[in-house]
Amino acid sequence: MNYEQLFQLIRKKKSFLCVGLDTDIKKIPGHLKEDPDPCFAFNKGIIDATLPYTVAYKPNLAFYEAEGTAGWESLKKTLHYLRSQSKDVFIIADAKRGDIGNTSGMYARAFFDELDVDAVTLSPYMGKDTVSPFLEYHDRWSVLLALTSNPGAADFQYFEDSKGQKLFEKVIETSKTWGSHDQIMYVVGATRAEALKDIRNIIPDHFLLVPGVGAQGGSLSEVARYGMNDHCGLLVNSSRGILYASSERDFAIKAAENAKELQQEMESLLRQQGLI
Amino acid sequence: MNYEQLFQLIRKKKSFLCVGLDTDIKKIPGHLKEDPDPCFAFNKGIIDATLPYTVAYKPNLAFYEAEGTAGWESLKKTLHYLRSQSKDVFIIADAKRGDIGNTSGMYARAFFDELDVDAVTLSPYMGKDTVSPFLEYHDRWSVLLALTSNPGAADFQYFEDSKGQKLFEKVIETSKTWGSHDQIMYVVGATRAEALKDIRNIIPDHFLLVPGVGAQGGSLSEVARYGMNDHCGLLVNSSRGILYASSERDFAIKAAENAKELQQEMESLLRQQGLI
Repeated sequence: MNYEQLFQLIRKKKSFLCVGLDTDIKKIPGHLKEDPDPCFAFNKGIIDATLPYTVAYKPNLAFYEAEGTAGWESLKKTLHYLRSQSKDVFIIADAKRGDIGNTSGMYARAFFDELDVDAVTLSPYMGKDTVSPFLEYHDRWSVLLALTSNPGAADFQYFEDSKGQKLFEKVIETSKTWGSHDQIMYVVGATRAEALKDIRNIIPDHFLLVPGVGAQGGSLSEVARYGMNDHCGLLVNSSRGILYASSERDFAIKAAENAKELQQEMESLLRQQGLI
Repeated sequence: MNYEQLFQLIRKKKSFLCVGLDTDIKKIPGHLKEDPDPCFAFNKGIIDATLPYTVAYKPNLAFYEAEGTAGWESLKKTLHYLRSQSKDVFIIADAKRGDIGNTSGMYARAFFDELDVDAVTLSPYMGKDTVSPFLEYHDRWSVLLALTSNPGAADFQYFEDSKGQKLFEKVIETSKTWGSHDQIMYVVGATRAEALKDIRNIIPDHFLLVPGVGAQGGSLSEVARYGMNDHCGLLVNSSRGILYASSERDFAIKAAENAKELQQEMESLLRQQGLI
């Protein structure tokens, strides 16, 4: 999916919601645990319930790797199910990979060939050759960590040079030259909404993947205020707030309600900006 | 395995060699491709041939993930085979993970519970809460990226504050307070041997995992000169130079020859330092 197609998908669905599939086998409703593949059964329930309100899904690889081979199978089934349900869905593997060139080439194969996702999150610490192999794939995206939403973001991302440039700004400034806004997105946490204004000065056109709304405390309207551009330019992720809205048999109904609530707020924000 | 045990293993084997299992299915000898699990068959050949000269093995996760579920199975079989062959082996999952706390907890489960490795490589970009869940495991290690051996290392790792401190130094200074030298190691590329002297001033006791000898051009004697401490404090990795020493039926013999050559050089360096 390319930049323009993603924007049209946002307009069509009146939403820029990304649902994070951080599926923790210990947290899913008890009645699903008898299923031969509880993780997939849960994901299927969440996908069926939230697809009307959602443009993107973001499986978090850690949660699948923690279950070993079975987890990898659940992930593949989930991705296959997503593709079978809709052509109109953008899939991000939240993997935060990053390694030297020949290894990154292997990760690119794993995510784009083997798992067939649209995008993968990458850590910028090791520089350009960690990203280049991913950029060789047409209509696939590299989503670089810039300013994250967790407490540890403060440890290094605000490290500042003598001119006052912070590491996350340096990462964006440098990496934006590696590919176009049709290939690269950035992770910017919703808990740092005030920073979005400065980031938009550096990258007016790029999409931002914004985690941290909900469980981590970020505000959607603040994110839209500082981060939205003329192609929306935002994918806002919610994971726990949707997945674990209920731990009972009504988990999918409650997930749909919470996704719909976010979608309606997003629709209103898109209207305010004249994008729909 | 703890700090002292690792040092005793190095003394016993007269080696601080780590063999990187970056097993590329496209590069393994043709006759193995008829095996039901060519990747495992290759790894088994390499392990049998190199175990006398080696203290650590470092499977590179990307190469297994690129093969999907089958790759994950090959990895598990390889790890199980390693454990069955010797209690005296240190296993590092080269995964370069790093994510917010609850996700890192899942990765810790994946690597320490599910795969049962001794150590995992981690990217520091997202700060302390990306590492903490790994430090909760007893006698397991977090190996943080500090100064890597690839060209892209120059993009951000040398980013410098107004006092002249570079990002990789800031990473080491900050993260050394998160746990002891019994829990944390650092990746420092052999291609940056001159930097090892300054790094040793910050962390005299920690082990360093040093890639980049061989294919990437680093010098073993330079690494030992600047990086060795009174517990050796080094694990030097070779991947391609050993794995692909020959692409024919004699691949294991040639791998053993190259591993032995490195071991003998290491033995000489350990003797020079009075450690054996």
